[in-house]
Amino acid sequence: MDIKFLKDQILNKNSFLCLGLDSDIKKIPVHLMKEDDPVFTFNKLLLDSLNQLLVAVKINTAFYESEGSKGWKTLEKTIEYININYPQLFTIADAKRGDIGNTSDKYAQAFFKHMDFDSVTVSPYMGRDSIEPFLKYDDKYTILLGLTSNAGANDFQISDKSELDLFKSVLKKSQNWINSNNLMYVIGATKSIYLKEVRSIIPNNFLLIPGFGAQGGSLTETYINGANNDIGILVNSSRSIIYAGNDINFLEKSLKEAESIQNQMKTLLND
Amino acid sequence: MDIKFLKDQILNKNSFLCLGLDSDIKKIPVHLMKEDDPVFTFNKLLLDSLNQLLVAVKINTAFYESEGSKGWKTLEKTIEYININYPQLFTIADAKRGDIGNTSDKYAQAFFKHMDFDSVTVSPYMGRDSIEPFLKYDDKYTILLGLTSNAGANDFQISDKSELDLFKSVLKKSQNWINSNNLMYVIGATKSIYLKEVRSIIPNNFLLIPGFGAQGGSLTETYINGANNDIGILVNSSRSIIYAGNDINFLEKSLKEAESIQNQMKTLLND
Repeated sequence: MDIKFLKDQILNKNSFLCLGLDSDIKKIPVHLMKEDDPVFTFNKLLLDSLNQLLVAVKINTAFYESEGSKGWKTLEKTIEYININYPQLFTIADAKRGDIGNTSDKYAQAFFKHMDFDSVTVSPYMGRDSIEPFLKYDDKYTILLGLTSNAGANDFQISDKSELDLFKSVLKKSQNWINSNNLMYVIGATKSIYLKEVRSIIPNNFLLIPGFGAQGGSLTETYINGANNDIGILVNSSRSIIYAGNDINFLEKSLKEAESIQNQMKTLLND
Repeated sequence: MDIKFLKDQILNKNSFLCLGLDSDIKKIPVHLMKEDDPVFTFNKLLLDSLNQLLVAVKINTAFYESEGSKGWKTLEKTIEYININYPQLFTIADAKRGDIGNTSDKYAQAFFKHMDFDSVTVSPYMGRDSIEPFLKYDDKYTILLGLTSNAGANDFQISDKSELDLFKSVLKKSQNWINSNNLMYVIGATKSIYLKEVRSIIPNNFLLIPGFGAQGGSLTETYINGANNDIGILVNSSRSIIYAGNDINFLEKSLKEAESIQNQMKTLLND
């Protein structure tokens, strides 16, 4: 999917909402446990119900890996279901991978070829040659961790001296990498005070913004400080939508929650 | 497995060799392709042939993930085969994971509970709360990326000013985390000039040292500068051993290569 198409989707749907399928077999509604593949059914029902409110779907691999090869099968079925039924949704493998070149090559194969995600999240710790194997896919997007939403972001990403902040070095250096137009960046909604500075370094790239909802970030702050001329932000919500309910009527509650967020987005986009 | 047992294994076997099963279906000997699960058979044959020369086995998840759920099945079969047949080998899931707390919890489940690895490699970028879900397993080891073996290590891990080196900050801060006795660190053999400084910061923790062999690091330099009173190093070799040959006699070549490395280790340990 190209960025122009994604921007059009945002404007058409009045939404920059990304749904995070952090689907945990221990948390899904009990009545789904009679299904052959309860997590796949849960994902499918959510997608069928919410797709018009979304422009992107983020699947966090951890929740599937914890169930081993069976969980990976569910992951494969979910991405295939999206690609067949909702090809207009931008898909993100939230995998936070990164390794030496010949190994990152294999991760890129896993997410871009074997499963055909539009994008994958990667960790910058190992530097340029650990990311280039992802960037070499011209039609795919590589989403680099910048400033994450968790408390631990303060351990290494942020320094005592602002000019030494690691996340800024990541933003700056990565702009010189081959195909850097195909980079996006993770910037946590809980760190919205940094968004203006982020935008001064990377005015054009899309930002994937987690940490809204369960983690407490503000949507308005995020939009005001993070949006650019292309809108340029995808705000993710996982738990607050997918676990809004946990009984037979869970979809109604998820729909209500997603509609509420999308309504706020509509207001922001049209103000 | 506890560290005392690992140290005893090193002294008994005169080896601190870790075998890296970066087993790539496109690179294994052609005659194995007639097997039901060629990569599993390749791994099994290598383990049966080389186990006496090794104290550890590192399985890099990327090479399995690139084949999807089928590859994950091979990964599960391989770790199960090792745990049943060679429980004295220290097992490492080289996965370089790391995410916010509730998500790292799921990765820890994947590698420590679902598959029962002794250890997993993790990236420090997201800080303390992304690592603690691994460290809370008292009987498992968490191997933090410190200074990696690749060229990209210079992008963020090493600074222009030595006192600002990120990898040193990672070593220092992580020593204050709960259960930090269960931390090990990745320090590339290609960075052996830093090993004395590394040991001044973390004198006691085990180091996992990749980058020997195909990547060009020196075994002697690594041992002289990296070993401590517990020996305290695991030197990994992947490609130079597992792809030493690629025909019907590949095991002989792999065995010869592993014996040559183990002989050098024996000399170093007994000097």
